[in-house]
Amino acid sequence: MTDVSPVLDRADQNLPSSLDNLFELLRIQSISTDPAFKPECRKAAEWLTAYLIKLGFTASVRDTPGHPMVVAHHDAASADAPHVLFYGHYDVQPVDPIELWESDPFAPAIKDMGDGRKILVGRGTSDDKGQLMTFVEAVRAYKEIKGELPVRITILFEGEEESGSPSLKPFLEANAAELKADYALVCDTGMWDGDTPAIAAALRGLVGEEITINAADRDLHSGLYGGAAANPIHILSDILAGLHDETGRITLPGFYDGVEETPANIKASWETLGRSAQNFLGEVGLSIPSGEKGRSVLELTWARPTAEVNGIWGGYTGAGFKTVIAAKASAKVSFRLVGQQNPAAIRDSFRAYVRSKLPADCSVEFHEHGASPAIHLSYDSPVLTKAKSALSNEWPKPAIVIGMGGSIPIVGDFQKMLGMESLMVGFGLADDRIHSPNEKYELRSYHKGIRSWIRILDALA
Amino acid sequence: MTDVSPVLDRADQNLPSSLDNLFELLRIQSISTDPAFKPECRKAAEWLTAYLIKLGFTASVRDTPGHPMVVAHHDAASADAPHVLFYGHYDVQPVDPIELWESDPFAPAIKDMGDGRKILVGRGTSDDKGQLMTFVEAVRAYKEIKGELPVRITILFEGEEESGSPSLKPFLEANAAELKADYALVCDTGMWDGDTPAIAAALRGLVGEEITINAADRDLHSGLYGGAAANPIHILSDILAGLHDETGRITLPGFYDGVEETPANIKASWETLGRSAQNFLGEVGLSIPSGEKGRSVLELTWARPTAEVNGIWGGYTGAGFKTVIAAKASAKVSFRLVGQQNPAAIRDSFRAYVRSKLPADCSVEFHEHGASPAIHLSYDSPVLTKAKSALSNEWPKPAIVIGMGGSIPIVGDFQKMLGMESLMVGFGLADDRIHSPNEKYELRSYHKGIRSWIRILDALA
Repeated sequence: MTDVSPVLDRADQNLPSSLDNLFELLRIQSISTDPAFKPECRKAAEWLTAYLIKLGFTASVRDTPGHPMVVAHHDAASADAPHVLFYGHYDVQPVDPIELWESDPFAPAIKDMGDGRKILVGRGTSDDKGQLMTFVEAVRAYKEIKGELPVRITILFEGEEESGSPSLKPFLEANAAELKADYALVCDTGMWDGDTPAIAAALRGLVGEEITINAADRDLHSGLYGGAAANPIHILSDILAGLHDETGRITLPGFYDGVEETPANIKASWETLGRSAQNFLGEVGLSIPSGEKGRSVLELTWARPTAEVNGIWGGYTGAGFKTVIAAKASAKVSFRLVGQQNPAAIRDSFRAYVRSKLPADCSVEFHEHGASPAIHLSYDSPVLTKAKSALSNEWPKPAIVIGMGGSIPIVGDFQKMLGMESLMVGFGLADDRIHSPNEKYELRSYHKGIRSWIRILDALA
Repeated sequence: MTDVSPVLDRADQNLPSSLDNLFELLRIQSISTDPAFKPECRKAAEWLTAYLIKLGFTASVRDTPGHPMVVAHHDAASADAPHVLFYGHYDVQPVDPIELWESDPFAPAIKDMGDGRKILVGRGTSDDKGQLMTFVEAVRAYKEIKGELPVRITILFEGEEESGSPSLKPFLEANAAELKADYALVCDTGMWDGDTPAIAAALRGLVGEEITINAADRDLHSGLYGGAAANPIHILSDILAGLHDETGRITLPGFYDGVEETPANIKASWETLGRSAQNFLGEVGLSIPSGEKGRSVLELTWARPTAEVNGIWGGYTGAGFKTVIAAKASAKVSFRLVGQQNPAAIRDSFRAYVRSKLPADCSVEFHEHGASPAIHLSYDSPVLTKAKSALSNEWPKPAIVIGMGGSIPIVGDFQKMLGMESLMVGFGLADDRIHSPNEKYELRSYHKGIRSWIRILDALA
């Protein structure tokens, strides 16, 4: 670490031109899902490439079967410095319904909210042009003051993130050697709230499984056979009900292998966030956590594995009533994984459990619906510790390390294809209206986001 | 009881003309479901009425909004004699697919099977013209020899049994005083096997109920909410799985109130029938009785109550996978009742049980799908004992008293609307192909059926 004060001062002085730069990029209508905007997507890639070259990167537009990638490289001051891959995307969502926008989505502007807040409005301000430019402008200020960079940087900007990233995996595969770094920085996430920066350090994995229980070789009349013939809906209900014990724990043998308790300091930091069961579940009409007893909703959704039935069907489901005993019944079941849980072992354990509950005259079919392990930075990783401290120095409240219940595909791809962990940091807020009309990014997010990256880059050196 | 030998002898002498009479009725194409055959239905009603008048009944064709009823009355020799209502139906099923018939369905014939068996072939031979004529021809022989009848008889022949009996309930209601008897004789059932007559003494009742469990006010993403938000499919599975204990008994409080153990002698008679779990369930691809442990399949389906889930649905049930936590999940549940079980009390107990398993932040909706109590003659009823003895005197093997797992609506209607129990006796066999091409009735069923009714009528006096 060096004295970054001059760099931070420079970022402050640069803010007007940093906004100009961002606005240039925002004016490019790079809607990736609509073929009419294909030239605009290329234009955005070209603009970024040119700008990165201006900052001293070797950068190029890289064609794909879809929209191009931007890849750029910059050496560090020291050959020993770590190498980071920064990922962002320059494409944006469509703007429909256009009539709900209060101003032209591609004519970005600063709006004074009158309460001391200023916001940047326009498509892509938060998702993801504003976010990626925090990093680029941080690099600019750093270079302007220091003449060099504290870490070696590779940049990858994608142009298809909002349309399913069809070219991403083939591109990572074909360019693995060039893109592989010590770790990735992914800026597609958000703050906890306007004062509290967040690092997403864990994403849950997933095992998807469909089961069908087969009993009689035809549907039966429940009058003639009821009480004697196996009812596959009963068997299925019994299997599903038995997945959890009365404390909400999942009963599959070996299920918790590789699940570690969240460190006390992390849990303590989550408890300061004021996310109660009441306010988290209250938004969707619920109030009582349903999972493992004695754990907070944040822990349940960020740091604990789950078994959820996502669909069930069998027998007569139309209007009225039919006294049938179905020949078969099915369910779709998914497991969210954390830590080092092994997806294949969990699938095996589930299947063995189902078979153990099956009457000898019935059968079961299994269909696999994908598997991915959990993704996580260990809570005591030096990268995490450094970034956390850097962010805490910048913002009013200390940075918190959070989990995410779902998945971010790029992070899984980096892990799987490049063997590289990701540090997920971003400055979006929950009310940024990404994907919706009147998307915004706080001016403060942009400004302090730039300053945050300066601190993080310095800390990572 | 009197000496019925002369009457039985007369029935034997009458057999050729009894067959002629039946064949006349069989030639009438009384297909109730096809409007084209409406005149034929009336013709069958008129034929029966004329024939009953010839036998000394006061009889008439009674119009309904659909096909007419036939109602006939005949006094008994003694004013103290019981009054019985005999029920049958003169309408038949359509004959499609006609190309599968080996002879004209409405040109009845006697076919010699070469193994000593002779069969009557044609539509309605077994269902139900052949069966109802066994009774009518028994009355004829009785009157020819004795000049009077041992019991007071009311006859009700319906013409809409094969098309949903839309006129039956209004007719019973409007003519309750005329039709009410001490008990009904219903001839729409069968023998246990060719040598063993059967009396169906019990029909299970039914309570139908649909439940919907509501959790969150919208479908949730299982990544963001999984582990914290209530999953209605889990709640429903738990409820359904908890309906039975590990011995197969139903757990609802009070469920077995009014359920009596089947008398040992009845159970012993069932054990002689050779219906094993293997041969009963083997026909539908199963082998292990699923209900209460330690009871035979006959007891389970005839004499024990059940709880069956007839349908279940919730969440994503299409192709592929969707990681959703559903807002709601539903099931259709039915209970088969026996003995004195109270349908309303069982519905209440089920609802209370469901509510007791419901998290405080979830709700449940119930929809009623009908309720009917079990129908039964008590196993030691004098009517049953007399009929059983009469049948046992006629056939090679003793009569057995059986239950029926399903329902026969007319029997419930007699019970509910006329406060009258039914004795269900018939001489059909499982291979009579009723409702199918090449319907048949054994000549022996017809002949010994007539003799059986002579013995029963005499025994009931």
